[in-house]
Amino acid sequence: MAAEHSNLSELRIDTGRLLGRIDELGQIGRIDGPNGEWGNARLALTDADRAGRDLVVAWMRELGLEVTVDAIGNVVATRAGTDPSLAPVMVGSHIDTVGTGGRFDGNLGVLAGLEIVETLTQADITTERPLQIAFFTDEEGSRFAPDMLGSLVFVGGLPLEDALGLVAADDGARLGDELHRIGYDGEAPCPTTSTPHAYVELHIEQGPILEAEGITIGVVEGVQGISWTEITIVGQSAHAGTTPMRLRHDPAYCAAAIATYVRDLTQHLGADQVGTVGRIDVYPNLVNVVPARVVLTVDLRNTDELILQEAEARLAAYLEELASVEGVEISTTSLSRFEPVEFDPATVDLVETTGRRLGYTTRRMSSGAGHDAQMLARVCPTAMVFTPSVNGLSHNIAEFTHATDIEAGANVLLQVVLDVLTADRDTGR
Amino acid sequence: MAAEHSNLSELRIDTGRLLGRIDELGQIGRIDGPNGEWGNARLALTDADRAGRDLVVAWMRELGLEVTVDAIGNVVATRAGTDPSLAPVMVGSHIDTVGTGGRFDGNLGVLAGLEIVETLTQADITTERPLQIAFFTDEEGSRFAPDMLGSLVFVGGLPLEDALGLVAADDGARLGDELHRIGYDGEAPCPTTSTPHAYVELHIEQGPILEAEGITIGVVEGVQGISWTEITIVGQSAHAGTTPMRLRHDPAYCAAAIATYVRDLTQHLGADQVGTVGRIDVYPNLVNVVPARVVLTVDLRNTDELILQEAEARLAAYLEELASVEGVEISTTSLSRFEPVEFDPATVDLVETTGRRLGYTTRRMSSGAGHDAQMLARVCPTAMVFTPSVNGLSHNIAEFTHATDIEAGANVLLQVVLDVLTADRDTGR
Repeated sequence: MAAEHSNLSELRIDTGRLLGRIDELGQIGRIDGPNGEWGNARLALTDADRAGRDLVVAWMRELGLEVTVDAIGNVVATRAGTDPSLAPVMVGSHIDTVGTGGRFDGNLGVLAGLEIVETLTQADITTERPLQIAFFTDEEGSRFAPDMLGSLVFVGGLPLEDALGLVAADDGARLGDELHRIGYDGEAPCPTTSTPHAYVELHIEQGPILEAEGITIGVVEGVQGISWTEITIVGQSAHAGTTPMRLRHDPAYCAAAIATYVRDLTQHLGADQVGTVGRIDVYPNLVNVVPARVVLTVDLRNTDELILQEAEARLAAYLEELASVEGVEISTTSLSRFEPVEFDPATVDLVETTGRRLGYTTRRMSSGAGHDAQMLARVCPTAMVFTPSVNGLSHNIAEFTHATDIEAGANVLLQVVLDVLTADRDTGR
Repeated sequence: MAAEHSNLSELRIDTGRLLGRIDELGQIGRIDGPNGEWGNARLALTDADRAGRDLVVAWMRELGLEVTVDAIGNVVATRAGTDPSLAPVMVGSHIDTVGTGGRFDGNLGVLAGLEIVETLTQADITTERPLQIAFFTDEEGSRFAPDMLGSLVFVGGLPLEDALGLVAADDGARLGDELHRIGYDGEAPCPTTSTPHAYVELHIEQGPILEAEGITIGVVEGVQGISWTEITIVGQSAHAGTTPMRLRHDPAYCAAAIATYVRDLTQHLGADQVGTVGRIDVYPNLVNVVPARVVLTVDLRNTDELILQEAEARLAAYLEELASVEGVEISTTSLSRFEPVEFDPATVDLVETTGRRLGYTTRRMSSGAGHDAQMLARVCPTAMVFTPSVNGLSHNIAEFTHATDIEAGANVLLQVVLDVLTADRDTGR
């Protein structure tokens, strides 16, 4: 720490200022529900995403940060350190949302980073290491699969050209074209040539566990493995009245059988296995026509890679059996596959001790959602801080986190970051 | 028969002339498939429907028929009889199609009627009873539900004003406005004041049974009852990774459970019960979101009204149980409900004996599809003649019926009509 400060450990963020930024960013692509709840639709690389990016970049510049945009549209804002030879400590997340998203998912981690910068600057604190605030492109994967795309390319997990060539599920737009259209095809190299010293991400839990147990701070040890499969079933379109059941090759029935099989599979494989059929598209989708074709997705997740592989194998075997019995053609495409990730034990310990030092209840847990942190964990020591989600809701405009929990999470992030900026674990990178 | 004719029983239609009209009408709204198959899109009351109507009406006038259009757009062409006090014998069907329809469905019955007229006139045959050829508005119901709309209003089954006020599913247009726009809001009274003496409809089977059994003529005893239900399931949208299975209220799972239940139901209720889930709409329909809401349709059909009611009751009970177990809200709307229809036994017998007399194989069967004949059966003795559909396909541009089968069906229709025009069953209406 370049500027010695007598009471660094007592430094706290300004909750009202942080909440103000969350609310202001949330006005862009705002969706209002019938009961006062509200959220956001800022799908990656849409006009709304551009407007959100422009606002956050403006804030970054107001705070005196140096902003770079890389070739996949990831934005990194740097608060300079006093020793330019040292690798930066990075905090961040994403600001894109799902189609009916909340205003905390992702945004909290980015705006808490800005809040930390403003807190340090107001307290006249300089650091030896640079501090970086990043937001990564297309974390949600709603428009361009796979999810966590920007951070994946950032760490070299997917060639840039492959990512730029991806096509939107909704309108067929090419990712590279959309990136150029909204003006975020930047010049910074991607994958990055500036590996962070450490990465810490604050995020809402997006699940019900912390609230159910009355815990304030989730100490995230790692992320579930994720397996997304798109399944296409081609049957025989037929008249719903004239075709005897025994002569049908009905892809909608097959899709239904798959969805109920996924439910059964989770029951057989234990409580850590989750499975979801979230998308079903039926063609031609008419009341009196046995469909010709159905496309559906299956989302399987587990913290244990071996059990996740078991789930995938069982599903594949079931699809083969179903195709044979029903006389349909079933083909599959992997939309996303990530193994479970374990975060850096020392940084995870630091989150836990910091949470307790600040007087909060803590709980070690794995993340059920994918996060940019799991990509950064490939290249640097990484950890995450979770705050509770009311009713466990996320990807829902009713997503909400209480102000006291946001304050707690952001202060834990601040203190962890100060500790990492100070710590002796410096490798000199 | 006013004009005695030595060999009426040997009179036959001109197959080439009939096929020529089918092909010419099929050029309007033609859709070509990749492998030479072709069909039609002439949705009710569109510009394509108007063009098809104009062509058929022109043919009717060329044949010297008197054409009337009624207030719901049904077109009736009359070949005068020698005794104006006698009720007419009517043949007919429809010329609207589904969005990806074939060129035989409906059109065959109407154009075979014109072919009968031309055959009688060429043979210089006059009849005491008038002969009428009709085509009814919006039989398919694809654009304006319910299906068989024109014939339903024709027989007084639905008030004219209600029908005119219907709104198109695709573009929100009002039926009465569309009827006026295409110039088919006619002046003849509807419901009709001229009840037919009898109604006979030639139609393709639209199913696989005749072809599978090598039968040429289907002797249709009646039409299955139809029950269409739209089911809306409201659950709790949630994150697919972070929400434990035990805490979910997943409407997509419920929709899948309903579709598999419908399959099971048909197996329990016997071979005459068919059930189809043809439409499934998922919101928001994203791979990683437990959906908030799913809307699906269930199409149940049976020739036995009591078993159809049993199927409906079991489905309703299952929905109630499912809503309770899964913690979702399930509501239903009836989209269409018709009881099974039994055709006139004497006219059905006549179709069977005529088919055999002409040397064709015959099979008694019920219709799995709805037809205008089931509406006419409310007011006069009615029967239908089925011809085979290749691969059982209909509502599909690959729909096809061989020329020899069209010839057989049209000749059976001709001979049945001659018999009904002659028969002693005349009630003097």
